[in-house]
Amino acid sequence: MIIDIHGHYTTAPKALENWRNRQIAALGNATDAPRPSELQISDDELRESIETNQLRLMRERGLDLTVFSPRASFMAHHIGDFNVSSTWAAICNELCYRVSQLFPDNFIPAAMLPQSPGVDVATCIPELVKCVEQYGNVAINLNPDPSGGHWTSPPLSDRYWYPIYEKMVEYDIPAMVHVSTSCNACFHTTGAHYLNADTTAFMQCLTSDLFRDFPALKFVIPHGGGAVPYHWGRFRGLAQEMKKPLLEEHLLKNIFFDTCVYHQPGIDLLTKVIPVDNILFASEMIGAVRGIDPQTGHYFDDTKRYVEAADMNPQQRDKIYEGNARRVYPRLDAALKAQGR
Amino acid sequence: MIIDIHGHYTTAPKALENWRNRQIAALGNATDAPRPSELQISDDELRESIETNQLRLMRERGLDLTVFSPRASFMAHHIGDFNVSSTWAAICNELCYRVSQLFPDNFIPAAMLPQSPGVDVATCIPELVKCVEQYGNVAINLNPDPSGGHWTSPPLSDRYWYPIYEKMVEYDIPAMVHVSTSCNACFHTTGAHYLNADTTAFMQCLTSDLFRDFPALKFVIPHGGGAVPYHWGRFRGLAQEMKKPLLEEHLLKNIFFDTCVYHQPGIDLLTKVIPVDNILFASEMIGAVRGIDPQTGHYFDDTKRYVEAADMNPQQRDKIYEGNARRVYPRLDAALKAQGR
Repeated sequence: MIIDIHGHYTTAPKALENWRNRQIAALGNATDAPRPSELQISDDELRESIETNQLRLMRERGLDLTVFSPRASFMAHHIGDFNVSSTWAAICNELCYRVSQLFPDNFIPAAMLPQSPGVDVATCIPELVKCVEQYGNVAINLNPDPSGGHWTSPPLSDRYWYPIYEKMVEYDIPAMVHVSTSCNACFHTTGAHYLNADTTAFMQCLTSDLFRDFPALKFVIPHGGGAVPYHWGRFRGLAQEMKKPLLEEHLLKNIFFDTCVYHQPGIDLLTKVIPVDNILFASEMIGAVRGIDPQTGHYFDDTKRYVEAADMNPQQRDKIYEGNARRVYPRLDAALKAQGR
Repeated sequence: MIIDIHGHYTTAPKALENWRNRQIAALGNATDAPRPSELQISDDELRESIETNQLRLMRERGLDLTVFSPRASFMAHHIGDFNVSSTWAAICNELCYRVSQLFPDNFIPAAMLPQSPGVDVATCIPELVKCVEQYGNVAINLNPDPSGGHWTSPPLSDRYWYPIYEKMVEYDIPAMVHVSTSCNACFHTTGAHYLNADTTAFMQCLTSDLFRDFPALKFVIPHGGGAVPYHWGRFRGLAQEMKKPLLEEHLLKNIFFDTCVYHQPGIDLLTKVIPVDNILFASEMIGAVRGIDPQTGHYFDDTKRYVEAADMNPQQRDKIYEGNARRVYPRLDAALKAQGR
């Protein structure tokens, strides 16, 4: 069984974007804001948006199940206030939940949070609770920079974030640390901001003792860990200078990397440098890079091909495809077992 | 001959830091500011700081020449205004010049600029001119984020930067794109901000047509290019989506990567993915990672060992060690030829 732990609903019907645009146009003028009930998307529309896109490609590539969350670049927590984010998150999470109900064998939801810059993260907990308890979400996406490229929130090691961590530990759900659109002209969203955030989050954990406070906390760092595996020697060396334990001890009980690296040499490095127990299969399909690589004739984001070609044995590959995901996402494992899988 | 194109004067006598601290303490109170002439460092002190540190390690490792610039983390362009930066840059550049005069066979200078957030970069040109014409500098370090982690300047593709580029082209000098200390609590300076800036700068070039305006402009992206080579497929794919030419055509006539990647798998990936003509030997010794790797028993930043062990032929290795540096830094080549080297 192959589980893709990183998929976003990037192909939602256009009505969703139209509703969001109306919401944004009405910022600061609450009477003009559209009501959630004005967004009407039928099950058939959802089905079609999935069957012709993600599910089609999953079948072509032989992927069984995707952990499915709202479109990352559309979270845009920097827009509006908490109420704007709250309404928007509820809508997006409900759509992913509905997709998981329409395709229970192929999709299981992960939640975005109604974060808003400068707002107490405890305000996100009611949405989180609903998503886990009523919608069966198995993980959350946590945005370390809800300002969208201005990095005005405290580092992830700050107590500011602890209310979320407490709930994560209580539910035994991991967080994928994933930023959204950059509204800073310096940072291209998918080419710079995403990768920078991955590196930044890892380093925030490295310099802190966060996992001493939360030994059961689990972070998935997407996009192959940003720059981290490529610079693994640098990070080992920096940890050593700071008198931290070896990274295996200090971070790798709590931090995991996905395989969203879109060429063979990158996956080769990832699987060589990072212990196999810390690597989870993912493609972020359909996402930032949608084309076909002229060098291979295959989709850049068909990461299964790279994992297949990487130098490892079938047991190791099975961990990356399934075993690690079941371990890091216990609610995913439980849901699969309930289905007899 | 082995040229290290990335060394900083991280070991300057303590008097330099003391002077800087006095300058910072006097911010906003010009009468208390120390005069440059109050900084007294003798040639013997300079000699000792180099002979016992960089030069000792260069000899141990078999490195012949270092392109030597002021300590990157101490540039701190976010501190004070243009006058503060201007005085500080002049002092730091003079010290590197003096080192190059004391050790003409082993060090050749590259300049920091007196950048200041929000200030016209044309104000940096007098210092640049002095450093090239009087001090024999062969390159500059250009800080894409003089705010120190708040990223308030325009992207490198913006016309804001063009006055510097015009002067670079006139002098035929490359710029190493190198940030300084992060004063944003989210970004660890050497573990996140440096690498993020490398990735960010590359993507700023990728999304723009900067090198159409400046076909002769050359950027060296340090720290192995941040996350870029590890995600080379992602960048190829993003360029393709944006209908840009292939990266070889679009960027690699103008962008070069150094070898400051502190473990073997990283250098293996770099040399596999990036054309050999675009890789320049460097170690950033003595820099961010000063310890010995317990896995190898050698210094993390002894990057020559990794280059030696990478899969390439002697001609390719010579390009990385010397030939590419002479091509990308024509004034370095001219200076060496004047020495009969």
